[in-house]
Amino acid sequence: MDFALSPIGVLRTCFPGKLGIPRQPGLAPAARGVLHFSPDQPPEIWRQALSGLDGFRHVWITFLFDQAVPQGWKSRIRPPRLNGKEKIGVFATRSPHRPNFLGMSLCRLERVDLEGPSVLVSGVDIMDGTPILDIRPFHPENDVPTGLVSSGWLERAAEPALSVGWQNGAQDRIAEFLPSALESGMPPYTPHEAQLLVEQLVGLDPRPAHRRGCDGNWYARILSFDVRVRVEDKMAWIHEIRG
Amino acid sequence: MDFALSPIGVLRTCFPGKLGIPRQPGLAPAARGVLHFSPDQPPEIWRQALSGLDGFRHVWITFLFDQAVPQGWKSRIRPPRLNGKEKIGVFATRSPHRPNFLGMSLCRLERVDLEGPSVLVSGVDIMDGTPILDIRPFHPENDVPTGLVSSGWLERAAEPALSVGWQNGAQDRIAEFLPSALESGMPPYTPHEAQLLVEQLVGLDPRPAHRRGCDGNWYARILSFDVRVRVEDKMAWIHEIRG
Repeated sequence: MDFALSPIGVLRTCFPGKLGIPRQPGLAPAARGVLHFSPDQPPEIWRQALSGLDGFRHVWITFLFDQAVPQGWKSRIRPPRLNGKEKIGVFATRSPHRPNFLGMSLCRLERVDLEGPSVLVSGVDIMDGTPILDIRPFHPENDVPTGLVSSGWLERAAEPALSVGWQNGAQDRIAEFLPSALESGMPPYTPHEAQLLVEQLVGLDPRPAHRRGCDGNWYARILSFDVRVRVEDKMAWIHEIRG
Repeated sequence: MDFALSPIGVLRTCFPGKLGIPRQPGLAPAARGVLHFSPDQPPEIWRQALSGLDGFRHVWITFLFDQAVPQGWKSRIRPPRLNGKEKIGVFATRSPHRPNFLGMSLCRLERVDLEGPSVLVSGVDIMDGTPILDIRPFHPENDVPTGLVSSGWLERAAEPALSVGWQNGAQDRIAEFLPSALESGMPPYTPHEAQLLVEQLVGLDPRPAHRRGCDGNWYARILSFDVRVRVEDKMAWIHEIRG
């Protein structure tokens, strides 16, 4: 049995490239996304489908890891949290390289704009332009286990974290690269919000597993600027912001 | 952009028919399912993909609401919890009648059998024979919101619940209808477990919304027998079990 998916829309986010995206939802509360609905249905149909959603504060977003599709799925992967040193079955992970390439992320619902219509969310870990398959409310009674929870290999693998500092007054240049309106339709970031976003993302040490734990330079594109970072002794120094 | 899903397998459950299935996962802990993997891949590939999953106690199952596909999706639905009296946007619900017909249920992981391979879960709210698209661990850090939760219309709509009693010694006949091995490959239910399952399901008042709140007779097929129920004054009496 094969069944064809048809995205309900596209999520525009602050992550134009892969490097810098948090590995799980909720890790960077300042990371925003806006869901624009597909022209396959009249806006009125999407408006109807959204009615009542604004009473919820958290939503599940189901999406397609479309960047992983060309490489195919893998039965075992090296999770970044294990520093790339160990292979784990893909079903024991949330890796994108999974059969059917389905992702699910719990995000905070910021606003339902029935005008567009569009939906603004935060805490996203999703790349800009990702096809979205569904959005539905978080149910506190059904989406949280009762009783003991065991987290398998995760228990011996904390999310990486670095302390973050700014150098050369780099933070002062953020304002230059923030357009007053974003082409994606996202509400514009203030310089302060963008600074917070950068700090959250850099602190998660998004470098590939084999480079983590080492000192060195890296950069990532976030929103509409490049962030240049040097890691020294568990401290990530943001030394340059450029367009 | 269309993308074709290919199920990883099929879930065999204790629910041969729609009536009697809990409306959300976790409501009937005695409800079991076993995931059998697709012959599209060699068993060795599925075994690899499952390695490490057994350390977790809860999993998300992503599935296709295949019974809803022929009717198409609906932009607004009448949630059973609102007694069918009010329409809500489908994205504000977990209704099966949604774009792409994707379901997600948090279940308890009971056993990973690498021999088969197969995966035994409990707390299911999924019909027997449902195509399964993915299985992945519950992440306590990323799958539970931080801060306040708001539950929109759910806050004024409790799950229906009835007190349950047995009549005519109906429970004593369960043993007759429990085969020692289930064709589905599920571990067989003991008479006591089956009795518990029946009590949990009947207590959830699975009748269609327009019939709930009224007295009357109904029956549902569960496992390999029919359960006949009479509701009188908020009390559900199970008066007959038959094959």
